[in-house]
Amino acid sequence: MDVTDNKGETAFHYAVQGDNSQVLQLLGKNASAGLNQVNNQGLTPLHLACQLGKPEMVRVLLLCNARCNIMGPGGYPIHSAMKFSQKGCAEMIVSMDSSQIHSKDPRYGASPLHWAKNAEMARMLLKRGCDVNSTSSAGNTALHVAVMRNRFDCVMVLLTYGANADARGEHGNTPLHLAMSKDNVEMIKALIVFGAEVDAPNDFGETPTFIASKISKQLQDLMHISRARKPAFILSSTRDEKRTHDHLLCLDGGGVKGLVIIQLLIAIEKASGVAAKDLFDWVAGTSTGGILALAILHSKSMAYMRGVYFRMKDEVFRGSRPYESGPLEEFLKREFGEHTKMTDVKKPKVMLTGTLSDRQPAELHLFRNYDAPESVREPRFSQNINLRPPTLPADQLVWRAARSSGAAPTYFRPNGRFLDGGLLANNPTLDAMTEIHEYNQDLIRKGQGNKVKKLSIVVSLGTGRSPQVPVTCVDVFRPSNPWELAKTVFGAKELGKMVVDCCTDPDGRAVDRARAWCEMVGIQYFRLNPQLGTDIMLDEVSDTVLVNALWETEVYIYEHREEFQKLIQLLLSP
Amino acid sequence: MDVTDNKGETAFHYAVQGDNSQVLQLLGKNASAGLNQVNNQGLTPLHLACQLGKPEMVRVLLLCNARCNIMGPGGYPIHSAMKFSQKGCAEMIVSMDSSQIHSKDPRYGASPLHWAKNAEMARMLLKRGCDVNSTSSAGNTALHVAVMRNRFDCVMVLLTYGANADARGEHGNTPLHLAMSKDNVEMIKALIVFGAEVDAPNDFGETPTFIASKISKQLQDLMHISRARKPAFILSSTRDEKRTHDHLLCLDGGGVKGLVIIQLLIAIEKASGVAAKDLFDWVAGTSTGGILALAILHSKSMAYMRGVYFRMKDEVFRGSRPYESGPLEEFLKREFGEHTKMTDVKKPKVMLTGTLSDRQPAELHLFRNYDAPESVREPRFSQNINLRPPTLPADQLVWRAARSSGAAPTYFRPNGRFLDGGLLANNPTLDAMTEIHEYNQDLIRKGQGNKVKKLSIVVSLGTGRSPQVPVTCVDVFRPSNPWELAKTVFGAKELGKMVVDCCTDPDGRAVDRARAWCEMVGIQYFRLNPQLGTDIMLDEVSDTVLVNALWETEVYIYEHREEFQKLIQLLLSP
Repeated sequence: MDVTDNKGETAFHYAVQGDNSQVLQLLGKNASAGLNQVNNQGLTPLHLACQLGKPEMVRVLLLCNARCNIMGPGGYPIHSAMKFSQKGCAEMIVSMDSSQIHSKDPRYGASPLHWAKNAEMARMLLKRGCDVNSTSSAGNTALHVAVMRNRFDCVMVLLTYGANADARGEHGNTPLHLAMSKDNVEMIKALIVFGAEVDAPNDFGETPTFIASKISKQLQDLMHISRARKPAFILSSTRDEKRTHDHLLCLDGGGVKGLVIIQLLIAIEKASGVAAKDLFDWVAGTSTGGILALAILHSKSMAYMRGVYFRMKDEVFRGSRPYESGPLEEFLKREFGEHTKMTDVKKPKVMLTGTLSDRQPAELHLFRNYDAPESVREPRFSQNINLRPPTLPADQLVWRAARSSGAAPTYFRPNGRFLDGGLLANNPTLDAMTEIHEYNQDLIRKGQGNKVKKLSIVVSLGTGRSPQVPVTCVDVFRPSNPWELAKTVFGAKELGKMVVDCCTDPDGRAVDRARAWCEMVGIQYFRLNPQLGTDIMLDEVSDTVLVNALWETEVYIYEHREEFQKLIQLLLSP
Repeated sequence: MDVTDNKGETAFHYAVQGDNSQVLQLLGKNASAGLNQVNNQGLTPLHLACQLGKPEMVRVLLLCNARCNIMGPGGYPIHSAMKFSQKGCAEMIVSMDSSQIHSKDPRYGASPLHWAKNAEMARMLLKRGCDVNSTSSAGNTALHVAVMRNRFDCVMVLLTYGANADARGEHGNTPLHLAMSKDNVEMIKALIVFGAEVDAPNDFGETPTFIASKISKQLQDLMHISRARKPAFILSSTRDEKRTHDHLLCLDGGGVKGLVIIQLLIAIEKASGVAAKDLFDWVAGTSTGGILALAILHSKSMAYMRGVYFRMKDEVFRGSRPYESGPLEEFLKREFGEHTKMTDVKKPKVMLTGTLSDRQPAELHLFRNYDAPESVREPRFSQNINLRPPTLPADQLVWRAARSSGAAPTYFRPNGRFLDGGLLANNPTLDAMTEIHEYNQDLIRKGQGNKVKKLSIVVSLGTGRSPQVPVTCVDVFRPSNPWELAKTVFGAKELGKMVVDCCTDPDGRAVDRARAWCEMVGIQYFRLNPQLGTDIMLDEVSDTVLVNALWETEVYIYEHREEFQKLIQLLLSP
């Protein structure tokens, strides 16, 4: 059994190349050196099975105690599996010997993740818990390698799983240093958007900006943008509990475009040095904005949420509309817990908008983490039909609240009697201000007027503005011939879109009204909403499109840096 | 030719009863007493032609100079035509001898209108300019007669053409006195809704209320309602030009349900003794509310507008949706003039909402009778597509503004690039307050801060609330069998209705937001919107349904009389 042929191969090598794993099983019954023998190419049977993509052979070999730590021409068997993108084989090795996920090849000291050639392979390892930031002997991370190999899809997966965009590798280069020479603007944007510093020097004292200036004017311009994100002043990083006025944060709906809000919040947190949770006393959100409001409440970092959104979209927006709600619900339960109640965390006060659609006209419902203010007003309808009262905050599951606020019609099926909050308040600012006023009035009525804090700042964040486009036909009429019929069908479609867009437009009048209201009362009002170059759907899944939206967000922050600074100053003043 | 047969009929009588008008023409060539001869029943040939409904015979007889003032058994020929509801004949007489429309029959001294047996006959005379309030010898108006004859449709036509609901007829009875004995609640409601006094005594000292109390408890209760409309105090009827604060009136959209707004305004004007034009400094309206805002601006009385709405609906909502816009446009031109510009009348300041739908997202446009405040804000879209700027107020035709604000999709075809203002602001309050704030800010920027007047009162009038109904299915999903397909089609329809209703609901959150805003700023906010018993469509044409809505409005005013009194007091305080 230890006999080798002229290629240095044993019976095990042959069995692996054959079709029948039972042969291999029989061979492996007795311990034999041939099991781990390398052939003339330096491959053990296990290497060979990985290279050929035979997970069943891998399984049998491992059951026969084949060794995983024999060096082949490129590394251990796991590295072979990665090199040849044999997902099944790599998965088999990791599942049978979990330590292999961290095993570094002797030549480069690289982990399997360094060897990942595509998004799928990288994702498989990351989902199984490999260290995204492990370094090779030269000091490079998998992100360095993916950038050097110009693998945009790998770069995105690594970034969304938390790869450090500023890791210093060989010669002190960050991934951004390495990206400069690749002439891949998308990749450079992705790195900057995920927080890469443009002014970090390498061992030769060169910054990415400096390298860019040697390459092209365009790259040089790109580098400018991220400058606005720098902390403007030195800040106390603790929240002033003695704040005399309240701050309100409002987050629009918009599906995966919630990434724009995340990017804005990251910039605000970075510039202020304070977490959003401590900058605001009230957080209101609709749909995706509601999920982010809950993320703030539950102390999840926005950088983490950015990764979550990029990863989640591929799971949630799979197939066609309406999407299965299972993956979305699983995700919400995973992030917020299956049994967590709204009142489990009490600060800041959070409200999510939902549309109670078991009645006509539908009504706004707020999911709160505090008790609803009691109203002294007469009920809206004199003869009220028999409707079930909404769940109390103390009994309301967090994940259900998030799901109910984010049930965009035709994207997802409704959650029980709730439709997406965006139908009534895609921009929740007016309703949040109404709620806070009613909350304070209720305190006064209860003799607790001393607890009333007036609003001093309202920050309203949007999920990006689509470009304005001309519309030619919203005419719907009785057709008298086929050509007119076609026109009226087209008109009806345009009209339908227009009606929906009118009622869910979070910009436009919603913003004008909120601004006027705030100005009348003497509240500082800030609306931040980047203009996007293209119309991005709620269920966009293209990384390139989304990275570009985040890039445009960075450009917007740069262009509005003065307003931004004023906002930060006000948020931090006592 | 003057020969009569044993029935006392001449050749003319025979010719009229025949089929050929040429025979009559030949007979009439020479003057002859037979032309005006009465037969044994007391009928001239002209009477006979009217009775038989032969307009062509009438025409020929009149061309032969047949006399219109020969008394028949019931009156003159015109009265015969009315008695037998021969519209063509009556029309022919009036068109050939316009004085006949006023001719009173010798027996009762009644005008043709008194003789009208149905709505069509009455409408025909009223359109040709007969006096709606002319009295018979006994002192009764046509309305008295219609009530006595229990002709609800006639009553409605007379009231909508301005018949005095309080005219004192025989024995000092008003139509309401007479209605009591008819056990026709609809008619009693109609009279009260059109302003009949329940406490006016007849010659025997009996009031309608007194009579009602003798008949039934139900009638007695009905009588209570109209008491709330009485002036509460003695008032100066001139507007205080020195008012230090501004008052804003906001009028919702809702098609023919604008009648509810009219009824509310009539009550406000009656209780305050001041015309709406002088009570308010700003008037904002959407769609039907926009038309009424213009009516206020152009000093049209609300009682007049009530009649106009009742008359107009039958002309405008004819056929099926979308309706021809011709009649609506003709009506607007007739009421406001074909060439009147928005700035022709400057006080109060008026704004109508419209939806600029030549772009996506659509934008709110305000049709103003003053110059738009200049904005210092950055344009909403960075790369603006090439869009035609809206018409300036000084060039904007009033009728077009009304038409543009009131282009409810699927009811009417859009007017050029405008869709109904209700799409963005079916309740215009928030946008009116935004506009006034921006107007004042603009004054301050221009150094005219002394002209700024703060808002002190906002009155928001609705077109009636539909009852809340439960909704079972808004689920839209991919069907897998015919039963599911049916469910999803139903769901899609419900969903579409819900989306439209959500975005155009003038009550609910729109009101909560406006109230909170006003309370925060210290503005007195009044929302008046009666709960209706049924869901009334924008294009309802049934008089009974609409009278009932107005009745419910009266009940609402009665139930809210304290709030109402407070409003009046505040409106009149300097």
